[in-house]
Amino acid sequence: MDQGVERISSEELSRLMKATASQIRQDLNHFGGFGQQGYGYNVKSLYNEIGKILGVEEAHNIIVIGAGNLARALVKYNGFSQHGFNFCSLFDIDGALCGKSVNGVRIRAISEIEDYIKTRSVDIAALTIPMDEAMDMSDRLYKSGVRYFWNFTNMDLELPEDAIVKDVHLLDTLLELSYRISSGKKTE
Amino acid sequence: MDQGVERISSEELSRLMKATASQIRQDLNHFGGFGQQGYGYNVKSLYNEIGKILGVEEAHNIIVIGAGNLARALVKYNGFSQHGFNFCSLFDIDGALCGKSVNGVRIRAISEIEDYIKTRSVDIAALTIPMDEAMDMSDRLYKSGVRYFWNFTNMDLELPEDAIVKDVHLLDTLLELSYRISSGKKTE
Repeated sequence: MDQGVERISSEELSRLMKATASQIRQDLNHFGGFGQQGYGYNVKSLYNEIGKILGVEEAHNIIVIGAGNLARALVKYNGFSQHGFNFCSLFDIDGALCGKSVNGVRIRAISEIEDYIKTRSVDIAALTIPMDEAMDMSDRLYKSGVRYFWNFTNMDLELPEDAIVKDVHLLDTLLELSYRISSGKKTE
Repeated sequence: MDQGVERISSEELSRLMKATASQIRQDLNHFGGFGQQGYGYNVKSLYNEIGKILGVEEAHNIIVIGAGNLARALVKYNGFSQHGFNFCSLFDIDGALCGKSVNGVRIRAISEIEDYIKTRSVDIAALTIPMDEAMDMSDRLYKSGVRYFWNFTNMDLELPEDAIVKDVHLLDTLLELSYRISSGKKTE
């Protein structure tokens, strides 16, 4: 779309993506199908339809638990807001941080979290706290009504089935690289 | 190990992990097997053996391309160093940043990158640059000899087969949550 392309075939999409043309057609058909045989896909309407599927047309409010370096980096990054993600508050146990702001987003005390969730519409909780606090905190958030978790702790959360957790385990990805480096050396 | 447990069975491990006892035994056997029938695993030696497999006994040097908020958060986080990961330099195109340090790690100019890699032992390059610079930069790093990439850009890197890329696509995980929120609403 940025390049002014108006229509595209599944074969052309296939060359741009790591997927076969038939997989792309099949996946898009799963959501109703937006192409026409012989014409392909209208790029702009495909973009809009995929946006609708992903729910980026609606705004989503995110609270961040923990106000450390990672939390600050997330809140300062402007690539999320253009997809409808809105950081509405940070929470930290450090009383000295409370009342301060990061990129215009206020830091509140963890003790305020239940009241905050009760009175605002919170869609997603991002967990950037130490691993040993993750279980209790996710439990507490679940009980307050939060169902969507963006988990940066190295803890596998154990929550009821209706909770959706997406993990970003940074250390795991590094350890995978380290493993590949070591096993690469062994086969040399 | 932290809890003073000296030995553990695959059944007990299974309860702590999201894997069956037989899967755990099978996976560990793949690397030689560290347990004994009827005894289970010695926790300390299992920890050490897994550490060896993952290569965390060796130090790994990481350079970070980009010195923005995410790069700073990575360099400031102390959870990586305890597993042998060492941030040795940041690189940025912003000349005003060069010579400054983050958590004791120096920021250098991108133009110095080839010379730096030539004279130091660099194991991993973390990419925290804008998406449209990712392809050229990964190509340049590959040509300088870097083979392991920790990719925080939303770009799927296209590199020769001997390059190992681990992606951390933050926006993707958020979009998955957004999708789950939207599809959850539809089925309510």
